[in-house]
Amino acid sequence: MITHTVFFKLYHPVGSEEEADFLKAALALGKIPGVKNLTCVRQVSKKNDFTYGLLMAFEDDKAYQLYNVHPDHVKFVTGRWHPEVAKFLEIDYVAHTPSAVER
Amino acid sequence: MITHTVFFKLYHPVGSEEEADFLKAALALGKIPGVKNLTCVRQVSKKNDFTYGLLMAFEDDKAYQLYNVHPDHVKFVTGRWHPEVAKFLEIDYVAHTPSAVER
Repeated sequence: MITHTVFFKLYHPVGSEEEADFLKAALALGKIPGVKNLTCVRQVSKKNDFTYGLLMAFEDDKAYQLYNVHPDHVKFVTGRWHPEVAKFLEIDYVAHTPSAVER
Repeated sequence: MITHTVFFKLYHPVGSEEEADFLKAALALGKIPGVKNLTCVRQVSKKNDFTYGLLMAFEDDKAYQLYNVHPDHVKFVTGRWHPEVAKFLEIDYVAHTPSAVER
């Protein structure tokens, strides 16, 4: 399982109708095959200036890549993401269990 | 519920004994009261250079602040985090449901 996250800041004012519309359009990406548990979060740390985040999971890298090239995703990226997102950072992760340390 | 995450890169080589020791020490923070579901993840996106992440949840901001000032956390930050972490970013978030958009 791979968790794909992206944290971002929009050009729209926080709390605006345009912002809500963008976030709703983003959540519609959850209909794309292979996307699991798509959720929208509000970023609350003062140690960075991202205002929202999107989190989703994929069974494996193949499902992730199919999402990346899916027409609905490509259309969202070109039609909504590029014009409306001022700044973003993508962070993806998988579970990690530290190996045994013998000393 | 607040999710606190921190993504980081260590001075230690990836796969080293020192790295595993650091991650184990970090996971021991899960014993601090109020910390829920502390997990270690490996960052896999090529779009940033963080190598690991720690994720945990707090019931509310009060629990989060109690964790921040807990002696075991303070000791970890000064004794392990500062000397062993080369770069990091903290991202915290709460659930967000976009408001209704009527047009």
